[in-house]
Amino acid sequence: MVNPAERLAELDGVLAEELLARGLLGELPEAYRLVPLPLDEPEVAQKALLWGQEAPNPEGWPLVYALFLEGRPLRLLLPEREIPLEAPRAA
Amino acid sequence: MVNPAERLAELDGVLAEELLARGLLGELPEAYRLVPLPLDEPEVAQKALLWGQEAPNPEGWPLVYALFLEGRPLRLLLPEREIPLEAPRAA
Repeated sequence: MVNPAERLAELDGVLAEELLARGLLGELPEAYRLVPLPLDEPEVAQKALLWGQEAPNPEGWPLVYALFLEGRPLRLLLPEREIPLEAPRAA
Repeated sequence: MVNPAERLAELDGVLAEELLARGLLGELPEAYRLVPLPLDEPEVAQKALLWGQEAPNPEGWPLVYALFLEGRPLRLLLPEREIPLEAPRAA
């Protein structure tokens, strides 16, 4: 069983490298909170959602969602608006 | 093995009921394309992403992403902007 915190840090690194390699870092807001969502790693995605919602965010940094499959980043979503329906339960 | 198309239609129905029950239908754009992302059903999420990207969208309807866990809708994301990094491969 992978440690979700470690896995999230890993995905964060993969994404940063990818954005750097593609010259896309400038596309992102200056400050943001990343929510990595590996679509094939439910425990990790759930943990990321929980943190994205619950961790203190005093500066109100926007959330940026990164969709992953098989450990590869597929797509970044920069929401204009979010509608919460149900809080993910703590794993 | 669940049929992804059937499962997506099912999730669509679950979401519609939830939005109706909570009086949230008015929160959504008048026209949109739903991309259900069940975080614990990788094949289904992958299919949804593929369709969201590739299906004809002549009116340019905005994509609305719905995050699900255990078949329950958690959150709707209405992106202001998306950054594609890699196309999901056809399953």
